[in-house]
Amino acid sequence: MYLEDIPLPEAIEKLENALTGANLWGVLGEETLPVDETCLGRILAKPVWARISSPHYHSAAMDGFAVLAQTTAGAMATHPTTLLVGESAVYVDTGDPIPESTDAVIPIEDVEALDAENQPAGVPRQPHAIRIRAAATPWMHIRPMGEDMIASQLVLPAGQRLRPVDLGVIAASGNTEVTVARRPRVAIIPTGSELVPIGQTIFPGEIIEFNSLVLAGQIIEWGGEASRFSITKDDYQTLCETVRRAALDHDLVLINAGSSAGSEDFTARVVEELGELFVHGVAVRPGHPVILGMLRTGRRLDGQDSGVTSERRIPVIGIPGYPVSTALTGELFVQPILAHWTGIRVPRSEKVQAILTRKITSPAGDDDFVRVAVGKVGDRILAAPLARGAGVLTSLVRADGLALIPRGSQGLPAGSTMEVKLYRSKEEIERTVFASGSHDITMDILAQFYSQYGIRLVAANVGSIAGLVALSRREAHLSGAHLLDPETGEYNLPYIEEYLPDVAVRVISLVGRSQGLLVRKGNPQRISSLQDLTREDITFVNRQRGAGTRILLDYHLQQLGISGDAIRGYKYQEYTHLAVGVAVASGRADCGLGIAAVTKSLELDFIPLVEERYDLIIPEDFIDLPSIQPLFEILSDPNFRKMVADLPGYDISRMGERITNQTG
Amino acid sequence: MYLEDIPLPEAIEKLENALTGANLWGVLGEETLPVDETCLGRILAKPVWARISSPHYHSAAMDGFAVLAQTTAGAMATHPTTLLVGESAVYVDTGDPIPESTDAVIPIEDVEALDAENQPAGVPRQPHAIRIRAAATPWMHIRPMGEDMIASQLVLPAGQRLRPVDLGVIAASGNTEVTVARRPRVAIIPTGSELVPIGQTIFPGEIIEFNSLVLAGQIIEWGGEASRFSITKDDYQTLCETVRRAALDHDLVLINAGSSAGSEDFTARVVEELGELFVHGVAVRPGHPVILGMLRTGRRLDGQDSGVTSERRIPVIGIPGYPVSTALTGELFVQPILAHWTGIRVPRSEKVQAILTRKITSPAGDDDFVRVAVGKVGDRILAAPLARGAGVLTSLVRADGLALIPRGSQGLPAGSTMEVKLYRSKEEIERTVFASGSHDITMDILAQFYSQYGIRLVAANVGSIAGLVALSRREAHLSGAHLLDPETGEYNLPYIEEYLPDVAVRVISLVGRSQGLLVRKGNPQRISSLQDLTREDITFVNRQRGAGTRILLDYHLQQLGISGDAIRGYKYQEYTHLAVGVAVASGRADCGLGIAAVTKSLELDFIPLVEERYDLIIPEDFIDLPSIQPLFEILSDPNFRKMVADLPGYDISRMGERITNQTG
Repeated sequence: MYLEDIPLPEAIEKLENALTGANLWGVLGEETLPVDETCLGRILAKPVWARISSPHYHSAAMDGFAVLAQTTAGAMATHPTTLLVGESAVYVDTGDPIPESTDAVIPIEDVEALDAENQPAGVPRQPHAIRIRAAATPWMHIRPMGEDMIASQLVLPAGQRLRPVDLGVIAASGNTEVTVARRPRVAIIPTGSELVPIGQTIFPGEIIEFNSLVLAGQIIEWGGEASRFSITKDDYQTLCETVRRAALDHDLVLINAGSSAGSEDFTARVVEELGELFVHGVAVRPGHPVILGMLRTGRRLDGQDSGVTSERRIPVIGIPGYPVSTALTGELFVQPILAHWTGIRVPRSEKVQAILTRKITSPAGDDDFVRVAVGKVGDRILAAPLARGAGVLTSLVRADGLALIPRGSQGLPAGSTMEVKLYRSKEEIERTVFASGSHDITMDILAQFYSQYGIRLVAANVGSIAGLVALSRREAHLSGAHLLDPETGEYNLPYIEEYLPDVAVRVISLVGRSQGLLVRKGNPQRISSLQDLTREDITFVNRQRGAGTRILLDYHLQQLGISGDAIRGYKYQEYTHLAVGVAVASGRADCGLGIAAVTKSLELDFIPLVEERYDLIIPEDFIDLPSIQPLFEILSDPNFRKMVADLPGYDISRMGERITNQTG
Repeated sequence: MYLEDIPLPEAIEKLENALTGANLWGVLGEETLPVDETCLGRILAKPVWARISSPHYHSAAMDGFAVLAQTTAGAMATHPTTLLVGESAVYVDTGDPIPESTDAVIPIEDVEALDAENQPAGVPRQPHAIRIRAAATPWMHIRPMGEDMIASQLVLPAGQRLRPVDLGVIAASGNTEVTVARRPRVAIIPTGSELVPIGQTIFPGEIIEFNSLVLAGQIIEWGGEASRFSITKDDYQTLCETVRRAALDHDLVLINAGSSAGSEDFTARVVEELGELFVHGVAVRPGHPVILGMLRTGRRLDGQDSGVTSERRIPVIGIPGYPVSTALTGELFVQPILAHWTGIRVPRSEKVQAILTRKITSPAGDDDFVRVAVGKVGDRILAAPLARGAGVLTSLVRADGLALIPRGSQGLPAGSTMEVKLYRSKEEIERTVFASGSHDITMDILAQFYSQYGIRLVAANVGSIAGLVALSRREAHLSGAHLLDPETGEYNLPYIEEYLPDVAVRVISLVGRSQGLLVRKGNPQRISSLQDLTREDITFVNRQRGAGTRILLDYHLQQLGISGDAIRGYKYQEYTHLAVGVAVASGRADCGLGIAAVTKSLELDFIPLVEERYDLIIPEDFIDLPSIQPLFEILSDPNFRKMVADLPGYDISRMGERITNQTG
């Protein structure tokens, strides 16, 4: 088996050619449905023409009296005209047909009802006569036949996705059925001996099978029907049988994964066995081990010697297994096929020019799709690259957009402008708070509360000092920091003076919190203080340079006269408290410095060392932004305060307090 | 019954207050679902937190050999290191757990497999030993536990509408269930003795009941469940019973219509009988007879004396019956309630500033919602008002956006700039061809073919001359015209010289067509020529001034020495051939001048008078627009040509030909 990456446009062309050759590059089929609410969202396969006019008769537009306009000529306030009801005037309700030999409706509020003696009548609806004080004009208050639609007129073009008003207009035009594109049937075959279904206990080496769910969701969104097959083990014969079966009653077969060239990767062999493989490998990141092919079904596959004429050709896609690769392969290859098959035009996503906040490196040989968070700070739109790994599904969940670093480029420097295809509306992007700085679990909870205001809080965990730098570059709306100044014992304010000398900022206390050593449950190695870090049998996990926790550690090590070189693992850095906690919980390290709050979920023990203040820093000119104002409400919301206070090691007594040099 | 319009903001405030008072102004309820593709599009009622880390173990990121990095120190191309397999190196597939006491993976392509004699081994997977020529660094090619998600971390905030990748990340984080907002149940009760269900034969005075379908579609789109009740006659007791029943097992009751103050309008009385009516009439156009109220259900309504504690309060909305009013009332009142109940934020629609192409008059007392077609011509965004009548549902179907003429304004002059809330993306707006000019049925067919290119052809039927004026003002991309110059017998070119003296245009022949008198089937009045129009027993229907057909008529009348005053109905004007045909078919007039093509659908007879040329006129600087180029393909498409040729009276022999002074 060979895997040779070809450029993306070439792969797409081969796919189109193969589908065109099999006469499968257009609407796949039609079905006719009765007009009801289940048609919502379906795509018209045929235009809708009006079968009747609407209204289909001349119709009263008001409650009142139908008259022949010329009989009212000359009626004036001072010279009223009297018309005998039943003779020259006929009562009509709104929607009633206009009686023969009348051509106008006088609204009921404009007539005086008279009795047989020409006195005011009590019953306005069937009086003896009416008196009017203004002449009617022909066709006044009448909805003429065909006002809305005229029989034979085009009502809706083919290709229209049916909206609620479209359903109404189809029915109003006398149509009782509607012809829509048939929903393509897509088989999704998850394959891999390591996969276990959702809900089953998992052990190391096992992976929850959720890619088929992402693909099924995509297919439904794109107008298809998805069949999720049960998991197929890595076995050539079994996979062959499953694919053969799927091809019989589906329009497209997706095999996820086994699409690479490893010893357990059978997808390419299966496609070659059951048809033709024409692409194995596409020069895209993430997701290069893509397989494109066509299966043959019919005489050869159904086991009966029924002749070549029954042969059908079914496209098959081998989809790489890393979750980000799976989802992007769906967008790149499956969506265009379904768009052609249903007649949906793939909505061209909105694009923005955004300024890159960090440099990106990229393999020169690939079209590299980078997930980015996008936010507007001041008047600039910024794009912050998210985790690059194809296994980091959260990067796609958090992504506000996708940027393409094309083949031939080795990346882009920070500050460059690039085009971002947006996953969200520009309006959502504008309702985003960009936070940058220290990581604290409270920020997750803050994001949750912010979402109730329809505002997204997007936090980049870059460390306290990098957060201040981001504020100085106007690349964030707010920053979280817990920076101890060794000389004064003060938090944050001296650093703000240093890093933001010319920026007016407001400093708000978020929480007080315990920092200490995170160790495994029961503290098996009996670690009790920072001195223990120099022990030969202890591996430490550190935080990155510029993190407040790192500064705290280095300060205390200096006090104790301990050099970093004396600590095993001092150079092993993580970017968040949770990541440090996981390193300890998983045995990758024996201890790390972090906050007490992470012990709860990771079942760690905690050796407290110091209490510190964690503040939010906000430039004064952002304070009045509609996106920042809810922050102050949240900080005084009892539900928010309780949720934070319930985590271990948090002190909320100063939450929301404004910190100044005096109060610090 | 009184109907007194109150301002829209006041009505919305009363509704909010009533719902708040009944504790119904928030998420209505939750339900917990297993994580599968049916959760797609549902709204999270609770945030999702990670229950496990992902990966939940340190995982090989490549196929290769797991090693302890420090055992490889010093390995170089010139000084390879050899590691015994099973002792210092362990084979791992991608996704396998990293064995104890290893901390790096060397990809299989970077090792040499050796046999027991340290000679190259044939089997790369379980050789005796491996030789490497570069040192490994710790954690190389390993996906550390928690790389994607760490247990306890916020995965998705409440209020999120679940997308395909969200389903994946919920499953990946160890969740098997998800708590989403319950779908509100909405009862839709169509009422009116004139209503007949879709599919039933209708007679004058009867109306197809399709409003409930539009409302059901809206409710489904907004995250609710819609129950369409069968039609209730205009009968107070029956309606009361139906509403009482609906209130028992729904969260919201919609009554359509009977919401005005006529003698057959029972909705307000029913609401007062079963609860409280707090709004009857809102100062909006279309749709002012809105009813807002709260029904009481429980002890009083279920017929059992079960105590007041079981009482529930259910909002009820009386929705006016004209279809545009129905749909707009849904947007104004139903959508915000469902948004609160499901936790969906109503997406704020995109807005544009557009230039009004025609003046709008508006009642000063109302918030007036005007449907407009929106297109970009040159670099200006234009808004053309569509039909204003509340009965013209096609105006809503064709609308690209909605403009609000606020209370206090009596309208806007042509050329003014106004804000338009878009129903389509700006991108779709930019892919719009704005046509203005003469009406021809071929333009409908052209629109249908255009839609296959993803381009909308929006035609304003203003008449040939008004179309040329629109081109001169750069308010249209193209114009259809059939203007006979009496002096030369030439079509269009002399008029183009007059109306577009400074504009370079291309003139393309669309069709030749027959103009003649449209009369009822069998020609009961034996009309044979234009001379008959002066007969006392004949009522004519005319076209508007500036229409090519009107110019044709006036030319021939002049030739015959007939004055317009001598023709009954000469001043009765319609704007399209179809409208003229309908006027004849419905008996509103006895004959009119028009094209043969309309006779087919309206079952009319035709007395041919003249053959004429209908051309498309396009300014040269629009010719190369991507939205104009498909026109030339369509004009030579055999399917298009056949569809036109199959209509009566069309000659396609010159279709697509470029008309110049020489060829004309």
